[in-house]
Amino acid sequence: MTKTTAITPTRSEDFAQWYQEVIKAADLAEHSAVRGCMVIKPWGYAIWELIQKALDKMIKDTGHQNVYFPLLIPLSFLEQEAAHVDGFAKECAVVTHHRLETNAEGKLIPSPNAVLAEPFIIRPTSETIIGTTISKWVRSYNDLPVLINQWCNVMRWEMRTRLFLRTSEFLWQEGHTVHATADEAMEETHKMLNVYETLAQDSLAIPVIKGEKTASERFPGAEITYCIEAMMQDGKALQAGTSHFLGQNFSRVYDIKFTDRDQQLCHAYTTSWGVSTRLIGALIMAHSDDDGLVLPPAIAPQQIIIIPFIMDEADTEKVLNYCEALARDLKKINYLEENLRVGIDKSQARAGEKFWLAVKKGIPLRIEVGVREIESNLLSISRRDKAAKEKTKLSRQAFLSQASDMLMDLHKNLLDRASHFRKLNTKKIKHKEELDKIFGGDENKNNYFVMAHLDPVVEQESQFIEKLKTLKITIRCMPLDAQSEEGICVFSGKKTKTKVIFARAY
Amino acid sequence: MTKTTAITPTRSEDFAQWYQEVIKAADLAEHSAVRGCMVIKPWGYAIWELIQKALDKMIKDTGHQNVYFPLLIPLSFLEQEAAHVDGFAKECAVVTHHRLETNAEGKLIPSPNAVLAEPFIIRPTSETIIGTTISKWVRSYNDLPVLINQWCNVMRWEMRTRLFLRTSEFLWQEGHTVHATADEAMEETHKMLNVYETLAQDSLAIPVIKGEKTASERFPGAEITYCIEAMMQDGKALQAGTSHFLGQNFSRVYDIKFTDRDQQLCHAYTTSWGVSTRLIGALIMAHSDDDGLVLPPAIAPQQIIIIPFIMDEADTEKVLNYCEALARDLKKINYLEENLRVGIDKSQARAGEKFWLAVKKGIPLRIEVGVREIESNLLSISRRDKAAKEKTKLSRQAFLSQASDMLMDLHKNLLDRASHFRKLNTKKIKHKEELDKIFGGDENKNNYFVMAHLDPVVEQESQFIEKLKTLKITIRCMPLDAQSEEGICVFSGKKTKTKVIFARAY
Repeated sequence: MTKTTAITPTRSEDFAQWYQEVIKAADLAEHSAVRGCMVIKPWGYAIWELIQKALDKMIKDTGHQNVYFPLLIPLSFLEQEAAHVDGFAKECAVVTHHRLETNAEGKLIPSPNAVLAEPFIIRPTSETIIGTTISKWVRSYNDLPVLINQWCNVMRWEMRTRLFLRTSEFLWQEGHTVHATADEAMEETHKMLNVYETLAQDSLAIPVIKGEKTASERFPGAEITYCIEAMMQDGKALQAGTSHFLGQNFSRVYDIKFTDRDQQLCHAYTTSWGVSTRLIGALIMAHSDDDGLVLPPAIAPQQIIIIPFIMDEADTEKVLNYCEALARDLKKINYLEENLRVGIDKSQARAGEKFWLAVKKGIPLRIEVGVREIESNLLSISRRDKAAKEKTKLSRQAFLSQASDMLMDLHKNLLDRASHFRKLNTKKIKHKEELDKIFGGDENKNNYFVMAHLDPVVEQESQFIEKLKTLKITIRCMPLDAQSEEGICVFSGKKTKTKVIFARAY
Repeated sequence: MTKTTAITPTRSEDFAQWYQEVIKAADLAEHSAVRGCMVIKPWGYAIWELIQKALDKMIKDTGHQNVYFPLLIPLSFLEQEAAHVDGFAKECAVVTHHRLETNAEGKLIPSPNAVLAEPFIIRPTSETIIGTTISKWVRSYNDLPVLINQWCNVMRWEMRTRLFLRTSEFLWQEGHTVHATADEAMEETHKMLNVYETLAQDSLAIPVIKGEKTASERFPGAEITYCIEAMMQDGKALQAGTSHFLGQNFSRVYDIKFTDRDQQLCHAYTTSWGVSTRLIGALIMAHSDDDGLVLPPAIAPQQIIIIPFIMDEADTEKVLNYCEALARDLKKINYLEENLRVGIDKSQARAGEKFWLAVKKGIPLRIEVGVREIESNLLSISRRDKAAKEKTKLSRQAFLSQASDMLMDLHKNLLDRASHFRKLNTKKIKHKEELDKIFGGDENKNNYFVMAHLDPVVEQESQFIEKLKTLKITIRCMPLDAQSEEGICVFSGKKTKTKVIFARAY
């Protein structure tokens, strides 16, 4: 018997195409008429709002305040930080004029009389403008730490784009902090990395590996870049967030100085950290199945959908009234310190269509209500993490008392499943030749996290660089919890404490 | 006796400069290194977040969903709506290149090899790109209405800028809706105008006049523009929000068509509506006094600040513990369906400095706590809407039970005060000569709302236009609640039902 799926192709048939189809079926986003930019549609944006809300609370609870800095960055600000420009600001949107005019043929053109003396770029990230500004805020150690964050749009001119994963414009938050000492800045860098880990695990149900980037993968201008790396269902890696210890690099360039307790003028230490709408891409590829999106309850715009089944029009009022009353009671239930988000699908669509729409939208719990359910006092409940047709029968009262636990269990199941999958698809190697065996062949199959001891100096060697290029893999990170075991570098044969993860990545 | 004020100059000395100083003293925002763009600092941004939260709830409660559309708009989209371009898109930021390069002198320049085939502008508003996109979403009457909103940054190249009031980049929300009938679109236009009125009155404590713009003041491309107009403390008007009935203008240009119940292909009717960070400028000029910012409790980041007075270091723990316990209890109190926002000023500053800082930041209630207050069980409470030194003594218990009512009363007082001020500064005229008398002389004094009957056709006459220009006044709106009384047009002498408000405006 062939199993039919709501999404074609399936994950195993064509993962990349499956990803696009899941987005389409859940109506999350679409490509816009502007190259590389997306339109985030209501269901996708509602997920982003819930991610924002959860993260914003943690950002504020750790003492940060939100601010807003200009979208445009003068070229002169960029010129000061060479590494930063090389890494970031080359492919960007450049603003050169401040007026349009209509030419002789009636076409709108940038007015030749309105050329900006200094062009601007649209921010790809805001270290430069925030650094320049903060340098005027900080005078003495009493002004430190500065702990700020902004939610905004940024732009990096991308040639090959994919919804949520890589778009020219995307939404994110960027935290920027200034500290008196290296220790405090390092503590901040780790604190926010931990916040991101909590967000990934508690809100997105995605297990992540905390690690440090090797030199070649570091944020341009950073001394140390930490990241959280997640495994997608095709075995590829996705960097879900980064936290940078910038040392004194940016404070030297942007002149962020303060007078310490001993009246000495010192350069401050800075950090920056960010996550973006990319998290929605991670979410899709971590949990969704061949029937569409699967949402963890914490960030599901609707956690429960009630689907009225009306066979006889005469029953309409009875069924709808029952659904309304059920929704009212469910909305009083507390889950993760908020009332449950409950919807009723009152559309004119057939019950089967409503059922599948709820599946494709990833709503954690579906409740079917018809006359039969009302009269027998047995609701038909389906969990999105189980097979679409699998149903549990519970009385109204039993469901009301168990709804919150069911959602909790669903979250745990998604997290466990993803952890188990990652474990299954993680390999340890002792020799570099194993990389060819593991990653050879079709680059869309054969994807794993490969753990190996690696002496970081190897990263400079052309042979090593070539090998990674050929296999289309990168060093994802040096996992933080694995750095103390000593072993033999798979490339140099020398002893090293450094362990890395090789993988193909988004 | 000379009264000293925390802000210099005072409102009566120099209103424009007073405005800048209030912003500085409350640390709301500052000019950035990018011409015309501002940095919104933590206290200013927290106010914006509270405005957003209140409005976002109302936007969602009225059935709208949030979305996100691209920042960049292709010139070809603009060319289609001539009126819109003339009114809006001429002074704007134009993106012409997608890469930087370093030239022979080591300077960063827009790469001559990376010129965009079609330039983009940074959105000044999003009717064009949203219209183009929505045209693909709408097929039949079943797809209507489309009710969406986005919170974003927009940019209009301004030559003369003022923090919050007029900046090249600002933050706002823009709602865009599509309807099957003109009636429904008109109902929506009014519904959102009413939402803005509620926001202004209930959150900002600003009384507003709902009105319709005359033809010359209409949104470019709109059939009807409604607005809410507020009076500032210098008697000038500030347009605080607009709601546009766009008729079929945009749906014709952007091809938004649907099949109706009779299988006829029709153009849809659209609306758009928006408010921006300008509201913070309105807030400042409506309520603040010569001691600084005055915040209505609904949008105050802290509604109550507890100021520990420690005369003897030995009392530190006792006083701070008391303050903590008091804050804990206050935070349990419900105000406007949320827990009270309460702060404790634990800085090292002297008590007097803390006191004045709280005044300048506009915090509604200040509580001073020292050993004397603890031992006598009499807290010293000051309201920001009263004279800075005016204090009420209340027992801890009495204050806890009255705090919410005090805030409610403070809000009402601000609203009443502003309404009373507007009433005092509103004049009615019967002859156009009165305009010269009223608005003659110093344009920073002599500012009023002047109500008059006006035949709208007069607006086309060069003499009329010249008169308004000379006096530097504009027609603010035709108030909605005044349109039925007939009278004599002050310019043409003809009978008319139309009443307008003349004023100088921000």
